[in-house]
Amino acid sequence: MFITFEGPEGGGKSTQIRMLSAVLESAGHSLVLTREPGGTTTGNKIRQIVLEDVSLQIEPLTEFLLYSASRSQLVREVIRPALQEGHVVLCDRYFDSSLAYQGYGRGLDLRFLQDVTWEATGGLRPHLTFLMDLPPKVGLERAAARGQFDRLEQADLQFHERVREGFLNLAAAEPERFYVVDATRTPEEIHTEILQIVQSTLIFKF
Amino acid sequence: MFITFEGPEGGGKSTQIRMLSAVLESAGHSLVLTREPGGTTTGNKIRQIVLEDVSLQIEPLTEFLLYSASRSQLVREVIRPALQEGHVVLCDRYFDSSLAYQGYGRGLDLRFLQDVTWEATGGLRPHLTFLMDLPPKVGLERAAARGQFDRLEQADLQFHERVREGFLNLAAAEPERFYVVDATRTPEEIHTEILQIVQSTLIFKF
Repeated sequence: MFITFEGPEGGGKSTQIRMLSAVLESAGHSLVLTREPGGTTTGNKIRQIVLEDVSLQIEPLTEFLLYSASRSQLVREVIRPALQEGHVVLCDRYFDSSLAYQGYGRGLDLRFLQDVTWEATGGLRPHLTFLMDLPPKVGLERAAARGQFDRLEQADLQFHERVREGFLNLAAAEPERFYVVDATRTPEEIHTEILQIVQSTLIFKF
Repeated sequence: MFITFEGPEGGGKSTQIRMLSAVLESAGHSLVLTREPGGTTTGNKIRQIVLEDVSLQIEPLTEFLLYSASRSQLVREVIRPALQEGHVVLCDRYFDSSLAYQGYGRGLDLRFLQDVTWEATGGLRPHLTFLMDLPPKVGLERAAARGQFDRLEQADLQFHERVREGFLNLAAAEPERFYVVDATRTPEEIHTEILQIVQSTLIFKF
């Protein structure tokens, strides 16, 4: 089972992955936790370029190709082998982030992004995707409070509004995969909802 | 005018670029010299990942996407602005290398590589491409004599035979752009041939 978490910085993805993984592990599931960009040695080097070195002026298409390179490596080196060995894989961001940020946010052609994504992932889609949805202003304030300002967070509020709309469009187009989570609530409330959905999916599909 | 140099390591690209640039500069042309992967701050960081860190196990598709990311940045940040300002641009490798190495060499789908290349370059093709052609064994021996063994050079001889065949196929498909240079000759002989072709192109096309 392959579960991804999407949404803005400050949306609580990391917290929910931590809470869900604790429950799944105590229930005896073998887990692999990973993230994008990164998750491999090569991917972590790409992450440094694309997220952590904020002095670089990276073109939107370059940015997308770097994310896709990290994704290609992560799928082949980590996610696909882990799924084949029967692990549950929880991933912090996956291709929906590229469609939302580089497509809806930066205005790159969605069709092209989807073609490259198909190759980069070898067609591997998550069974479940939780979209942590909240108003960009709230997410940015939360991220700022943690001292987190990477490349994406420095961009303007309108950009983040487009990204949010993009995520919601993607979710609406695949209701059987996406669950939109109201991320303005407490971590415990959100965790309860996520856990219920994961449990019913595990029972009925696996 | 945009001129690229293609072919294997040990084929003498750098030497020929140096010799040609000296003549063009003394003739009053304003030059921009660059290379792939690299040529920009972002691209040089990508170059480190893809060429210099030989301990990394990089998947062929990841490798192609990293080269394409470097290319996207180079075209937008360096080559296109330089051409618009009237400079002559000499580039050590460009998209033909990706088609030859990752397509013919590693077996990735050429159609997909071309689609991504079209986006990465914004459709920008060289006016002239010199293919430094020589038997892989000769090139590898030359590169080894210089102590150069990066990721591509460590691969096996059959791989390099496929790459050579790929370059020759690409050249045959675009005879108006490509000049295949017999790179087993002396640097001076090769330089004389290249200079003649560049001069006649400058006279008749620019």
